Amino acid sequence: MADAAVSAPPAGAQETYSITLPVREYRPTHFRLDVDGKTAVITLNRPERKNPLTFHSYAELRDLFRALQFDEEVKTVVVTGAGGNFCSGGDVFEIIEPLLSRDMPGLLQFTRMTGELVKAMRACPQPIVAAIDGICVGAGAIVAMASDLRVGTAGAKVAFLFNRVGLAGCDMGACAILPRIIGQGRASELLYTGRVMSGEEAERWGFFNRLAAPEAVLEEAKTLADSLSAGPTFANAMTKRMLHMEWDMSVDQAIEAEALAQAVCMKTEDYRRAFEAFAAKQKPVFEGN
Amino acid sequence: MADAAVSAPPAGAQETYSITLPVREYRPTHFRLDVDGKTAVITLNRPERKNPLTFHSYAELRDLFRALQFDEEVKTVVVTGAGGNFCSGGDVFEIIEPLLSRDMPGLLQFTRMTGELVKAMRACPQPIVAAIDGICVGAGAIVAMASDLRVGTAGAKVAFLFNRVGLAGCDMGACAILPRIIGQGRASELLYTGRVMSGEEAERWGFFNRLAAPEAVLEEAKTLADSLSAGPTFANAMTKRMLHMEWDMSVDQAIEAEALAQAVCMKTEDYRRAFEAFAAKQKPVFEGN
Amino acid sequence: MADAAVSAPPAGAQETYSITLPVREYRPTHFRLDVDGKTAVITLNRPERKNPLTFHSYAELRDLFRALQFDEEVKTVVVTGAGGNFCSGGDVFEIIEPLLSRDMPGLLQFTRMTGELVKAMRACPQPIVAAIDGICVGAGAIVAMASDLRVGTAGAKVAFLFNRVGLAGCDMGACAILPRIIGQGRASELLYTGRVMSGEEAERWGFFNRLAAPEAVLEEAKTLADSLSAGPTFANAMTKRMLHMEWDMSVDQAIEAEALAQAVCMKTEDYRRAFEAFAAKQKPVFEGN
Repeated sequence: MADAAVSAPPAGAQETYSITLPVREYRPTHFRLDVDGKTAVITLNRPERKNPLTFHSYAELRDLFRALQFDEEVKTVVVTGAGGNFCSGGDVFEIIEPLLSRDMPGLLQFTRMTGELVKAMRACPQPIVAAIDGICVGAGAIVAMASDLRVGTAGAKVAFLFNRVGLAGCDMGACAILPRIIGQGRASELLYTGRVMSGEEAERWGFFNRLAAPEAVLEEAKTLADSLSAGPTFANAMTKRMLHMEWDMSVDQAIEAEALAQAVCMKTEDYRRAFEAFAAKQKPVFEGN
Repeated sequence: MADAAVSAPPAGAQETYSITLPVREYRPTHFRLDVDGKTAVITLNRPERKNPLTFHSYAELRDLFRALQFDEEVKTVVVTGAGGNFCSGGDVFEIIEPLLSRDMPGLLQFTRMTGELVKAMRACPQPIVAAIDGICVGAGAIVAMASDLRVGTAGAKVAFLFNRVGLAGCDMGACAILPRIIGQGRASELLYTGRVMSGEEAERWGFFNRLAAPEAVLEEAKTLADSLSAGPTFANAMTKRMLHMEWDMSVDQAIEAEALAQAVCMKTEDYRRAFEAFAAKQKPVFEGN
Repeated sequence: MADAAVSAPPAGAQETYSITLPVREYRPTHFRLDVDGKTAVITLNRPERKNPLTFHSYAELRDLFRALQFDEEVKTVVVTGAGGNFCSGGDVFEIIEPLLSRDMPGLLQFTRMTGELVKAMRACPQPIVAAIDGICVGAGAIVAMASDLRVGTAGAKVAFLFNRVGLAGCDMGACAILPRIIGQGRASELLYTGRVMSGEEAERWGFFNRLAAPEAVLEEAKTLADSLSAGPTFANAMTKRMLHMEWDMSVDQAIEAEALAQAVCMKTEDYRRAFEAFAAKQKPVFEGN
């Protein structure tokens, strides 16, 4: 059912019926994108303003993560910020001010667009590793939260500061996702007060998977991402899908869903490769199929 | 649709169609209630018995939290106990003994009443800050758990001791709520054994948001509560509602619910006030509308 | 409705209409089973291979936990491994290799059987205490995770290493259960990387309830189990059922479910015994009814 209008899949890949470009061909205008092997690095890149988000960068990020859903080459994603900060969130003059004059459909269009970014981050098959130093606040904290893994620094300042700008802590899924990462009590404090979570707290509470030195945090995140890219990526994508889907299942439903998912993974060549490498006392080389 | 039979709303407030008194006019008989500005302080006040609960105090607490749902003035609630202890739970001779001779409808009437207290604490729009020193056990531990934030002392002793009195750990929502605060494994231990969680454990596990000295714990809780009362309280109430509602939603449902909720908050004056204060390099003064 | 074909209940027990043997009469072939009073100890017992699981031991474990659902004598279960290790998971040559030649129904038969083990562990009324030293990986880590309480050693190595053998982290409910014990971020790391969680991390993250010395870990687990067996075991079973059932309920549904469950427990003799012991300043002796 190949169609002339869709882009050709990369060599060796199977047809995915997607009309999107392969992600390696993307040239985003509102952030940097570097695809190195199977790992894509997204860099929020307006360091003089601590990498704020704007209407356009939100939309472009959403579109990129939606495109990743059908990409055959990128297997893991790193998200970071340029110049020693992660992201200062929605820009005051480029987002907050114009929203003040929007009518309700216009506001909902915005809040749904930002929510679509988180949905796309959760729906794409690639695990996402955030590398977080410096300021990581507002929508920036949400992007970190919506990632799968987080490497941070002791000096990082993470704040869900929505109530400081007169808004609710329930932004882009925070009231559902943050409690599952750091617990209901700690999440409640951060969302009601907008206070900074320090890097040390973030590690102790399970928000950061580990701490790294500022000069090493991106490299550690990349190394972690590359190690996932070198793993059984078809299976990793199944892990991500199930971590997402089982959130509101009963225990028994989750177990049945995993029985189906794991049976599917047992039909992959990666599973055979792992066994054969083990039997030959070698390290397996996974190919994601 | 104002009705002569309902109480008049306080000056400046909009009609809430409630038949309850404003909370500031309540004169409870089974605990102390002090409304200071936008913060109400509930003090369990029978210190010679470590502030136990009785049938009547349960019911009166439930009614107060139900009334808070429609109160226009109180924006945050502090719960504490008099005399160096938080609460010793259901009184042995005033609750446990009389329950022994109740029939099943009578027992269910009691367990539902206690559950209604937790439901009312979760349903009222005001964030609840518990200030916890000394004994905090049984139903007292539940009241602490059902609060939104908890300031405790190192010497506090929190115990879900239901199984010590021959009962199950599943009391007033504990099997649902406690695991989300401290994790499933730690909650299981506390609920199966009834053992004391120390103040240090409570902080380390995320049950206490922070530790304070015994002489400072109530003041720290009040300061925290006052800071929430001075925030965008309409938005804070939305945060509370969503933290409650999203518990059993899928991630995508939660994100859509928050898109709606945040769009509503963007129509408040507090949102405008925050922007205008920022643009004028001032601190915003929120009014909760 | 007693039926001649079913086994007679033990003396004093009420008819449970089960066709299974009392668990004390089981003579399993693939692990050791010691019933000592009200506590059953299951020992994975192939220490020269670090206690791997095979098709037959999976099935026999599943059947034992299903039988425990109807057992009137055993009130708490301890799971451990012989020879200083807990369990090395599915055996490479006895499980992984033969699965490679199975068709899809055959694979699903396997993944559902392993899932049934976890379902049976969660469905039986007895709290399960795992005593974990040394290697605890793959399906072994799952058995530890599916237990209710975990006593471990500092030297224990727990790894959900499915992706190391080319599979997904979603095995036997891990993507649902592990995040609820240690949080979504930490669980994601363990499931995506297959890395070892150290004993110290396990305690700090809430996976282990406590650490014990290697020579004491089984004894501490037994002491904990015996203390539960000496408690109000009917009520403990209710706690377990509710911890399991309320996972995907709303807060209000959970509170109503607990109102019903606790009212049932208030009709037990154990509840009366606790009150009478308290009134007589004695320690209650519970009988589980």
